[in-house]
Amino acid sequence: MIEKISSKKVKNNPIGIFDSGFGGLTVMSAINKILPGENLIYFGDTAHVPYGSKSKDAVIKLSKEIAYFLIKNKVKTIVVACNTASAFALRFLQKNSNVPVIGVIEPGAKEAVLKSNNKAIGVIATEGTVLSGSYPSEIRKISKAKVYQQECPLLVPLVEEGWIKGEITNAVIKKYMKRLLEKKIDVLVLGCTHYPLIKKALAESIGQEIAIVDSAQATALEVKKNLAQKQILSNRKEGNFKFFVSDNPKKFEKIGKLFFEKRISNVKKQELWG
Amino acid sequence: MIEKISSKKVKNNPIGIFDSGFGGLTVMSAINKILPGENLIYFGDTAHVPYGSKSKDAVIKLSKEIAYFLIKNKVKTIVVACNTASAFALRFLQKNSNVPVIGVIEPGAKEAVLKSNNKAIGVIATEGTVLSGSYPSEIRKISKAKVYQQECPLLVPLVEEGWIKGEITNAVIKKYMKRLLEKKIDVLVLGCTHYPLIKKALAESIGQEIAIVDSAQATALEVKKNLAQKQILSNRKEGNFKFFVSDNPKKFEKIGKLFFEKRISNVKKQELWG
Repeated sequence: MIEKISSKKVKNNPIGIFDSGFGGLTVMSAINKILPGENLIYFGDTAHVPYGSKSKDAVIKLSKEIAYFLIKNKVKTIVVACNTASAFALRFLQKNSNVPVIGVIEPGAKEAVLKSNNKAIGVIATEGTVLSGSYPSEIRKISKAKVYQQECPLLVPLVEEGWIKGEITNAVIKKYMKRLLEKKIDVLVLGCTHYPLIKKALAESIGQEIAIVDSAQATALEVKKNLAQKQILSNRKEGNFKFFVSDNPKKFEKIGKLFFEKRISNVKKQELWG
Repeated sequence: MIEKISSKKVKNNPIGIFDSGFGGLTVMSAINKILPGENLIYFGDTAHVPYGSKSKDAVIKLSKEIAYFLIKNKVKTIVVACNTASAFALRFLQKNSNVPVIGVIEPGAKEAVLKSNNKAIGVIATEGTVLSGSYPSEIRKISKAKVYQQECPLLVPLVEEGWIKGEITNAVIKKYMKRLLEKKIDVLVLGCTHYPLIKKALAESIGQEIAIVDSAQATALEVKKNLAQKQILSNRKEGNFKFFVSDNPKKFEKIGKLFFEKRISNVKKQELWG
């Protein structure tokens, strides 16, 4: 059970964001663009990346430890910027934390339903997210749309290699998209925080008739809405950033900037106790 | 420090083999082909896969726990069937265990030197293995050959997708091989236990003039030599297999058979204590 600490309405407290690795930095980047005055703390669980192939129990255990660390750092809200952790651990964290916890799946699911006319929605994600059934389940709550999921295990390493365009990337995307296109989807949800980096290649592959839902952007808008409702948006002009990882801070600084689109420095190592 | 237990010369004790996931099963398969009478215990650390992107400290910590588990299970020798763990943790395990510990790097390095005429050796591996410099360092001990290393982060997920041949696999291999071929290598070391599954595609890409060293085979021969020297080879006709994983036993049964080339059943979950 995560220590319950009172959620004082402290406008200047930071927003805590976590992911298994680098991917959540696309969510952090989207939050920073929409809410530039907020202080942001990021935790990347690089010792245990990727979560996509782990079991539910394992992901809950790790997420709990990270949420505890963020709460100790006085965050006013927690963003689970990882689709697998949102799929497996969000309910647990919401139940056991006294600060609001926002995942990436619900905002993406809502936007997908709004954008779909023929009610056929495609979702691309990691194995863990697909197997969890979280996107179909969230969409089913608000719509009768059909949901077609596709696991794409190669897309994360492709992005981390920096191969965000070109022959190989296009061929891999084409292979993964084949079945979804046959289903006549009109919306494609990027169900993994790495995928915004290949949004352009995906858009070219699927054509203009299919709308892309970037869950990083949808989540950032949800965070803004939530803080505004609670009247705890910061009044600051410019917030600062803190970064913690469970392994390899140097690598995080180097690769992280691809995802965050800004320089990353002073990354601190914070081991999880397992 | 790993508990020191006396290495009784017990012929019928099993051989312990471990890896971060499935890959080491190619080594187990090679050992089973060469030594069919041996009982084999496999530990796949699927809760922490992949090791390739982890730091040295993290890999040593995990390897230590697994070696301890195997020693408790009375293994007569330990095979570190993972290139990253061999690179980072072999010396530590050899120093702190009372059973022989054999890695996959030294056998592959020795065979590469034997096979190279123009003394230009290529090594393909994960990031962790490349950064460790273990292959260049092992080769340097016995030869003045030049060693050219290439990280190939996409090959592991390609193999796990089952895309072991075809247009995408060939294009990815071609991209990774480009720099090595320019260096006029005449031997290519498969420095990751996943790669034997794409040996055919690799061979077609690099042509017949370049010899491929499969470190799984080289390691199995080294194990046989070592047990024979100590006169502790089993007299059994047919050995049995036991499998332990730290997460997702069902997935291990399903994907594992691609690597082991035999049916895998009754996989037990054994958590590491972190």
